[in-house]
Amino acid sequence: MMNDEIQQIVSFVAETDKLKLVERTNRLVHAKRRENSAEHSWQVALCALLFQEHANEKIDLLKVLSMLLIHDIVEVDVGDVFLHDKHKVEDLYERELAAAERLFGILPNNQAEKFVLLWKEFEMRETPEARFAAALDRLMTPLINAHSNGGTWKEIDVPLEEMLANNNHAQDGSEVVWNLIQGFLQQGYEKGYINSKKMLA
Amino acid sequence: MMNDEIQQIVSFVAETDKLKLVERTNRLVHAKRRENSAEHSWQVALCALLFQEHANEKIDLLKVLSMLLIHDIVEVDVGDVFLHDKHKVEDLYERELAAAERLFGILPNNQAEKFVLLWKEFEMRETPEARFAAALDRLMTPLINAHSNGGTWKEIDVPLEEMLANNNHAQDGSEVVWNLIQGFLQQGYEKGYINSKKMLA
Repeated sequence: MMNDEIQQIVSFVAETDKLKLVERTNRLVHAKRRENSAEHSWQVALCALLFQEHANEKIDLLKVLSMLLIHDIVEVDVGDVFLHDKHKVEDLYERELAAAERLFGILPNNQAEKFVLLWKEFEMRETPEARFAAALDRLMTPLINAHSNGGTWKEIDVPLEEMLANNNHAQDGSEVVWNLIQGFLQQGYEKGYINSKKMLA
Repeated sequence: MMNDEIQQIVSFVAETDKLKLVERTNRLVHAKRRENSAEHSWQVALCALLFQEHANEKIDLLKVLSMLLIHDIVEVDVGDVFLHDKHKVEDLYERELAAAERLFGILPNNQAEKFVLLWKEFEMRETPEARFAAALDRLMTPLINAHSNGGTWKEIDVPLEEMLANNNHAQDGSEVVWNLIQGFLQQGYEKGYINSKKMLA
């Protein structure tokens, strides 16, 4: 029924079905449950279609979509690490790289190599496509929280300044997206959902 | 902070966050809960990347991905209709078209028009991209059920012959995908998860 390469692709799809079970920190706009990384991956790829004209640089949209569809697959092994904890997790990149090699390694060799490279490119943010994809990835949580009465902003203790600092690479990918993120965060602060170091000092 | 067009895009993303709450009939490979249409949309778009070389005809992959990312958004208004009930729902296309016009209508005009056309193209299956996208859409449930001990095949009362008939347009998009679907269904029948009219007669 199947040759080996088709069987490898099918096994990869079945294994990465686990991404639907990886919980992110934020919740949904219209319900209380937490979002999972599979539905997040859909939404951020959709946003690439919607915001494509607002990338800072000329981009290959097919590459951006490909990146975003695979960017979180490593979480099948590593789990979702909360953005504001990421700099505390020293060996996170090494663990995610091992996950990328194991998971994409289920695929036929040529696809495995291609997807590991694409995942690394996303992580490095050294190309226009990676910078734009990373900006969109940073947009999603502020957009969701801004449309759900503060959402998980109210549950975490991260001051405005740290949120801005952790997201500010978005400006390298899209000024429009960075303006949106800043606007949502500022609005969250003004409504009392987000603290500020200045206010705490 | 935002001009009108950016505001419209943001409103669309917030509204279509509801796709994460639309339940499909099938369950996950690695858990009992039902799949939602947002995570399904991620997975079928991922499959377009993985099976791109196996389309019957030359395809524009960017168009296929765009179609698959938006193909189920109408379900925000209409809900997911079980494949084998679809032919019983006489006015389904009209209801889905109204949903497409309302939902994509939240977007700026040029995007709204583009996405309504793209959704119609997917539904009509008259282009190589739409035929390939539709074949992948049909692959997902058999693939998931085949990897979860029969999954929802055991819960529904649809004979093998009807499953094959309802999915057989997949062969117009990809012989490889159609062979996979037939293989999974045949295997489901042999393992006793799917009935057959012949056996029942």
